[in-house]
Amino acid sequence: MTYCVGFLLDEGLVLAADTRTAAGVDHVASFRKLTVFSKSGERVIALMSAGNLATSQSVVSVVSERLGSREGQDSLFESTSMFNAARIVGSVLREVMQTDAETVRASGADPRTSFLVAGQIAGRPPRLFQIYEAGNFIEATPETPFLQIGETKYGKPILDRVVRYDMPLGDAAKAALISFDSTMRSNISVGPPIDLMVYRRDALDGGTRIEVTADDAYLQKMRQAFGDGITALFESIEAPPVS
Amino acid sequence: MTYCVGFLLDEGLVLAADTRTAAGVDHVASFRKLTVFSKSGERVIALMSAGNLATSQSVVSVVSERLGSREGQDSLFESTSMFNAARIVGSVLREVMQTDAETVRASGADPRTSFLVAGQIAGRPPRLFQIYEAGNFIEATPETPFLQIGETKYGKPILDRVVRYDMPLGDAAKAALISFDSTMRSNISVGPPIDLMVYRRDALDGGTRIEVTADDAYLQKMRQAFGDGITALFESIEAPPVS
Repeated sequence: MTYCVGFLLDEGLVLAADTRTAAGVDHVASFRKLTVFSKSGERVIALMSAGNLATSQSVVSVVSERLGSREGQDSLFESTSMFNAARIVGSVLREVMQTDAETVRASGADPRTSFLVAGQIAGRPPRLFQIYEAGNFIEATPETPFLQIGETKYGKPILDRVVRYDMPLGDAAKAALISFDSTMRSNISVGPPIDLMVYRRDALDGGTRIEVTADDAYLQKMRQAFGDGITALFESIEAPPVS
Repeated sequence: MTYCVGFLLDEGLVLAADTRTAAGVDHVASFRKLTVFSKSGERVIALMSAGNLATSQSVVSVVSERLGSREGQDSLFESTSMFNAARIVGSVLREVMQTDAETVRASGADPRTSFLVAGQIAGRPPRLFQIYEAGNFIEATPETPFLQIGETKYGKPILDRVVRYDMPLGDAAKAALISFDSTMRSNISVGPPIDLMVYRRDALDGGTRIEVTADDAYLQKMRQAFGDGITALFESIEAPPVS
């Protein structure tokens, strides 16, 4: 299982993905689920995926192969808008599903994968899209500044409470890690390391990327502070008049 | 959608269920999802359901009809153990599915329902079971003191953090309501009123039952205190060194 979350903020973009892939309990491996395509000073486009790993990797491979194309409807490096970049990923996803879905389903596996596509092209604002399994997509807005794919529910309540379009990038990174912590506590198949990318609007670079491991000092301190804080908050609230 | 949660505690049982049933957005109704069978001084057995409402109601109707039977394998009033009570509910669920599942599926609906069965029979300890859609079941233990059915994920992180077998009943009721609040914030199809039942071990009565409405003074105060507390806690934690 995977969990990925992306934030579209006034200050830029924050993306986070876990790296664990589980194909049965005896086979737990880590793969990158965050891929970044960038041309310094011109564009940065990041892809995150959740779902069938073969489908995800095929899509990323085909998208990578087509970077050399001169056609804006094929290459993320030629695309003139993030909307078109999202359309490229959705379209490649449809091609891969056309080829693989039937036989994968016949083998008893689920071929579906969804994506987050986020980035900025020079002269245009940063944008964030969620590509559904069918290749269609939705976009984050200032009113709905985060999108999630994969194991999304355990980590959503904390985001619903604290995420705002005008929050600082660092606070969004903190919210992302707390959301991952809640998810990892409730579903052992989502696990560290967590790939975290923080991109400042108009930087047009590959962003700041860090790998947050299980023994990362910040992660440990945050987990302890948040866990202790929730317990204290719970205790501070009066019980209902029922017993 | 529905959310139900049950706690098995050293002090007794706490059960909570929302009452909303949604069959499309133009038709939102409230039905009781918590049914209590009790004989004062002898036994109390509560059922909560999540899933197809027709299946749920059929199971509760058949179980109710068989209360008059003298057979312990048919009647919740004659059953000598909570284990057997769980088996009765699972077995009736299988009968109802046998009759209805195929035609309901053919109409495009999902006939499945799961149950929580909780209670105490004189001279024996309180027990709590989760009946799966297939009629088989698992039991809560001091190490795993809560079970959930329906829309379970949004409300699980807070329970994972604070619920302990040796917590007071009032605190468990508070945890249940916070868990509902988190769920209702993230999924509008789960909504108040919430049926709450608090049962003290060895009371062998119907427990204390209250209906917590949307404008309930305690619920409002708790929501405010918990929301403000989470925001303050979030702000008190240092951001990661990424931006």
